[in-house]
Amino acid sequence: MNTLDDRNTLESPPSPGDADKSPMLPDRNRQDLINRMRRLEGQVRGITKMIEDQRYCVDILLQVSAARAGLQKVGLSILENHTRGCVTTAIKENRGDEMVAELIDVLDRFMK
Amino acid sequence: MNTLDDRNTLESPPSPGDADKSPMLPDRNRQDLINRMRRLEGQVRGITKMIEDQRYCVDILLQVSAARAGLQKVGLSILENHTRGCVTTAIKENRGDEMVAELIDVLDRFMK
Amino acid sequence: MNTLDDRNTLESPPSPGDADKSPMLPDRNRQDLINRMRRLEGQVRGITKMIEDQRYCVDILLQVSAARAGLQKVGLSILENHTRGCVTTAIKENRGDEMVAELIDVLDRFMK
Amino acid sequence: MNTLDDRNTLESPPSPGDADKSPMLPDRNRQDLINRMRRLEGQVRGITKMIEDQRYCVDILLQVSAARAGLQKVGLSILENHTRGCVTTAIKENRGDEMVAELIDVLDRFMK
Repeated sequence: MNTLDDRNTLESPPSPGDADKSPMLPDRNRQDLINRMRRLEGQVRGITKMIEDQRYCVDILLQVSAARAGLQKVGLSILENHTRGCVTTAIKENRGDEMVAELIDVLDRFMK
Repeated sequence: MNTLDDRNTLESPPSPGDADKSPMLPDRNRQDLINRMRRLEGQVRGITKMIEDQRYCVDILLQVSAARAGLQKVGLSILENHTRGCVTTAIKENRGDEMVAELIDVLDRFMK
Repeated sequence: MNTLDDRNTLESPPSPGDADKSPMLPDRNRQDLINRMRRLEGQVRGITKMIEDQRYCVDILLQVSAARAGLQKVGLSILENHTRGCVTTAIKENRGDEMVAELIDVLDRFMK
Repeated sequence: MNTLDDRNTLESPPSPGDADKSPMLPDRNRQDLINRMRRLEGQVRGITKMIEDQRYCVDILLQVSAARAGLQKVGLSILENHTRGCVTTAIKENRGDEMVAELIDVLDRFMK
């Protein structure tokens, strides 16, 4: 799964034909998401440390659940931004069909 | 949720009465879990960077799903070790009821 | 949660102002969904019978998992139809904001 | 997936060697589960009717989520009974290893 292509990075601005794949996160939302991800990074490191320190299994599991819930919230925010941004734009330009198919596909994975 | 109490840390070895809360991870399993958590830490950092770099939303969402799935696998391994270790010991010593109640409670959270 | 109001039933056709809440399922898809739901009804009745017949717990649990997965697939199909129908129409008529908020809210519940 | 074999039914009582696969639900719990399953059957039929009646997609999705949550609760109860019954018995008789492996396997499916 190579998602690390150079599509839509700051270095390679999207061409007009890629308009529906542009990053659509408003700056304020993006900074909020970055802050939440930083906290999640700390949480995940904390879980590693709990395992190293041989902490009680159930306490570790509760932290794993919390980290998963945090990731899900971040994912839902990205999903909302994506729908308000890329998907909305594509639909207005009558290019919505493929975008909706892609959205449902990612939802399917996300729900597992 | 303060799970960082001093119960069962290396510094404060469990008292005999806490026997059912002892860490039960065999060393080999623990090192495997630590390795998987380190990879997950990298994955989570990668997601933060994708958001900073304004990468395509769907690509980010796929990574978020992958990280959640990775955390679930780690959680399931811990759950297995916990059942083989703490829960099994408690049942053999006729102290299983409370442990099973705790196990079901953590499963309930974990499934959400 | 009373969802059994008379909004958009066959007996009370939607008023123009309710256009974004019209049922948007094409007939073919609707029949397919009904067929899948009928099979799910049978599956759920089968689980009840397994419990009555004191079948082995793990066998029952596997059927419960299968029924949940079936319901999720039906839900995903409805979600897809909703996005292609109601949400797309609302976006094209510049009434998309509220619809997307509602969509994200239902996704949030659906993922739990 | 044929789970409808005749293992452990009332008609064919388990042989001694199948002791760990005996139904372990106490009568009171079983009747409670049957009652909950009957309500779920009604809920699932209600969803079919909502689709037939062309009800609003989001209202249908909320009912689908509620039915899935109900199934999960039933599953968790069965899981608890199984752990208190079959798994506990197997562990006490030093036959726990295989039972725990089976339990983790069914949890893995159940969490998806």
